[in-house]
Amino acid sequence: MAADNKLVSEITARDVDFAQWYTDVVKKAELIGYTSVKGCMVFKPAGYAIWENIKAELDRRFKETGVQNVYLPMFIPEGLLQKETDHVEGFAPEVAWVTHGGGEQLQERMCVRPTSETLFCDLYQKVIQSYRDLPKLYNQWCSVVRWEKTTRPFLRSREFLWQEGHTAHATAEEAEERTVLMLNLYADFLEDVLAIPVIRGRKTDKEKFAGAESTYTIEALMHDGKALQSGTSHNFGDGFAKAFGIQYTDKDNKLKYVHQTSWGMTTRLIGAVIMVHGDDSGLVLPPKIAPTQCVVIPIRQKAEGVLDKADEIAARLREAGIRVSVDADPAKSPGWKFAEQEMRGFPLRVEIGPKDIEKGECVIVRRDTREKISVRIDDVASCAAKLLETIHKDMFERAKKFRAEHTYEAATYEEFKTIADTKPGFIRAFWCGDEACENKIKEDTTCTSRCMPFGEPETPEDAVCICCGKKARKLVCWGKAY
Amino acid sequence: MAADNKLVSEITARDVDFAQWYTDVVKKAELIGYTSVKGCMVFKPAGYAIWENIKAELDRRFKETGVQNVYLPMFIPEGLLQKETDHVEGFAPEVAWVTHGGGEQLQERMCVRPTSETLFCDLYQKVIQSYRDLPKLYNQWCSVVRWEKTTRPFLRSREFLWQEGHTAHATAEEAEERTVLMLNLYADFLEDVLAIPVIRGRKTDKEKFAGAESTYTIEALMHDGKALQSGTSHNFGDGFAKAFGIQYTDKDNKLKYVHQTSWGMTTRLIGAVIMVHGDDSGLVLPPKIAPTQCVVIPIRQKAEGVLDKADEIAARLREAGIRVSVDADPAKSPGWKFAEQEMRGFPLRVEIGPKDIEKGECVIVRRDTREKISVRIDDVASCAAKLLETIHKDMFERAKKFRAEHTYEAATYEEFKTIADTKPGFIRAFWCGDEACENKIKEDTTCTSRCMPFGEPETPEDAVCICCGKKARKLVCWGKAY
Repeated sequence: MAADNKLVSEITARDVDFAQWYTDVVKKAELIGYTSVKGCMVFKPAGYAIWENIKAELDRRFKETGVQNVYLPMFIPEGLLQKETDHVEGFAPEVAWVTHGGGEQLQERMCVRPTSETLFCDLYQKVIQSYRDLPKLYNQWCSVVRWEKTTRPFLRSREFLWQEGHTAHATAEEAEERTVLMLNLYADFLEDVLAIPVIRGRKTDKEKFAGAESTYTIEALMHDGKALQSGTSHNFGDGFAKAFGIQYTDKDNKLKYVHQTSWGMTTRLIGAVIMVHGDDSGLVLPPKIAPTQCVVIPIRQKAEGVLDKADEIAARLREAGIRVSVDADPAKSPGWKFAEQEMRGFPLRVEIGPKDIEKGECVIVRRDTREKISVRIDDVASCAAKLLETIHKDMFERAKKFRAEHTYEAATYEEFKTIADTKPGFIRAFWCGDEACENKIKEDTTCTSRCMPFGEPETPEDAVCICCGKKARKLVCWGKAY
Repeated sequence: MAADNKLVSEITARDVDFAQWYTDVVKKAELIGYTSVKGCMVFKPAGYAIWENIKAELDRRFKETGVQNVYLPMFIPEGLLQKETDHVEGFAPEVAWVTHGGGEQLQERMCVRPTSETLFCDLYQKVIQSYRDLPKLYNQWCSVVRWEKTTRPFLRSREFLWQEGHTAHATAEEAEERTVLMLNLYADFLEDVLAIPVIRGRKTDKEKFAGAESTYTIEALMHDGKALQSGTSHNFGDGFAKAFGIQYTDKDNKLKYVHQTSWGMTTRLIGAVIMVHGDDSGLVLPPKIAPTQCVVIPIRQKAEGVLDKADEIAARLREAGIRVSVDADPAKSPGWKFAEQEMRGFPLRVEIGPKDIEKGECVIVRRDTREKISVRIDDVASCAAKLLETIHKDMFERAKKFRAEHTYEAATYEEFKTIADTKPGFIRAFWCGDEACENKIKEDTTCTSRCMPFGEPETPEDAVCICCGKKARKLVCWGKAY
């Protein structure tokens, strides 16, 4: 059976070298491939299918809140990119420029969109005239390009897939409401669908988006104790509207600027799924987005009736709405198939052989706990459906427990530095509000302010900044981040 | 009621100026918008929703044949693009070049993909080793860029959305089988879903895809008598495999080249829908891809119970799986709403007012024929569902009849030129197989060979080329094309 374990033995142990483990899993589970295009990656079928499931469920949730999908050009003329000062400063250094088209040099070079605020503003300026045209709740699914120097699959690449929502509202209140609504939609999605607990909060001015008045974020903790910013929602106020002249005639017949938001999630969510749930045997996929939720593996498949029974079980599962496949490849041993199911992170496998059939039973094995459950074939569908729910809940609870065990409170700067040095995870500590302290903390510890979490009690009168000792304004969740 | 018709009166009559009619419809139905990016267009919600429905149904059909979705980079390094000679000659003149990224000049410039054969070959070269790795049946949904000089919404723009399937097979037979399978899938999709009849056939060598051994096509006839190439499927043989070194070890332990195909459909399908089915009042959407299949319009909506009844009808329709909306905007008259429903091409509208409610009835109006049908409210859902099926069938039959009435046979070149000059439509005529004749016909008439249709009887011994009079090899369907 040595060969059966080869697949798994080729993965670096997670606690030995997390970065190498991650790369191994991404490759061995065939999520990613490479071509000759430096810094860009290929989404192979197993990787893209996860994104398709994420996209379908997110899209459904967007539309429930009235969002409409659109598609805007992938090019932004240089002049358009430069209209909002903070925004261009944030993005210009990392864009890719198209200078020639159709055999001729362009009169004005264009960048490949790193994000599309400027294009949406250009459109909104043309289509919004009256209060009756508001709100506009547009979203697009597309790829964007940022010329990163160092890249990692899903986490940082020169091109990635995402959605970007861009809305325009009559009032500041409505824009703020939408910003928070989308942040909560993102948070609920990670928790309810990806089984990843998140901290919801607000970014400091230093960490907010280029051009935003305020940026809200959800932060998740990876297994190595590093934070991953998993989704952001920005309130632009009327800054972009003023730069682009987006005005509407209100009911009182006065010309007013719109208030705007934007919000986005990317394929880095797949990285989060891998780094929160994966283990030494490979991927562990949350049931709700697993492209295959259950694989049926016949044992002694040449024996009479085994393949038929495997197909029958698959049909029962399919009928119950479970995404199922049968692995009847005669060239692979059952042991190899077990290892492959674990590597690819399918939440369940069903083992069915001649002995099981005699008893009218089969064995269901959970990917997350490896628990084996014997079940009557008649009950296999209801049992599997229940198990998928249980697995989701258990995965979420385990991740929550892990985060609780890796979240620390620091009372002094010395303590902060010791924790940052020795205990990977989140550090909760008060902050005066001064960017200089953020910079010093980053320099001393490589920790950055992840967010000012929502729902914290009011900052006590006597609380002091962890760094400078002056009066504290906010509790901040700090961490080392991807 | 004059204002009610303003919406429609702003459309140019279809038979007065077809091109202007098309542009008017595209704008007034809010399918397309413009930004400051020259030659590129914005898919507004109404336009993008049609594409989403096309995509969902096509994607489902692809997957039924074993196709898997992937995503490859949008950039192609110049060296990679140049590997296959015919291919690079076909595309190099119309690509957009990225020359700078991250503030620096690139060592090798990259084009934004005009199509991704070269990237798929680069990937296949890396992942295919053995016959066990075959076939590979990959597809991607993405946008591509071709630097067109003159552009028209949906039909020709510098960036458009499409899917591109790329497959690799062990044998030439398998590749040919897949090429034909996808062509037929496309044809069935147009006929069964878009209600557009198509001619299935093979392209002449002059018209085939750059790098292909053979190209199959589906050709549809627009209302102005011009042809629209609506989908193509290419058999590459082993040409790309040899250029890129894509080899596998077969069962007999010999190293062999794979055989490849590619096939694609684009957002120009939306243009086809408009130009085949639309009329002087605007869009007429095929029921199966209409984002809204039925709009419920209350009459005297302030009267007691009218809005409630409209909502009740909408709920009944929704329950029957019909995509429905209620237009209860108090600022618009019913007449305006009728005109808007017609403009936007929703297949059905339901009118419901106090008098209808008294009788327990409502009125259903077909978009395609404007027929009004009184129906018991209890029966509204089943009646609407049946009507949607009938509308699809009737739209298809009308388009088929139109095509039959605009398809001509030419026996002499004089006759051919007269038809080409005076009767818009397809011309069926024999051809010797010589490219010189294709060129002469194009020069004399602007007609191009659309395809050599499938399923024609064998070319008679005495048939002669319509152009040169030499022995004919094939029947060709000629036409002026978009």
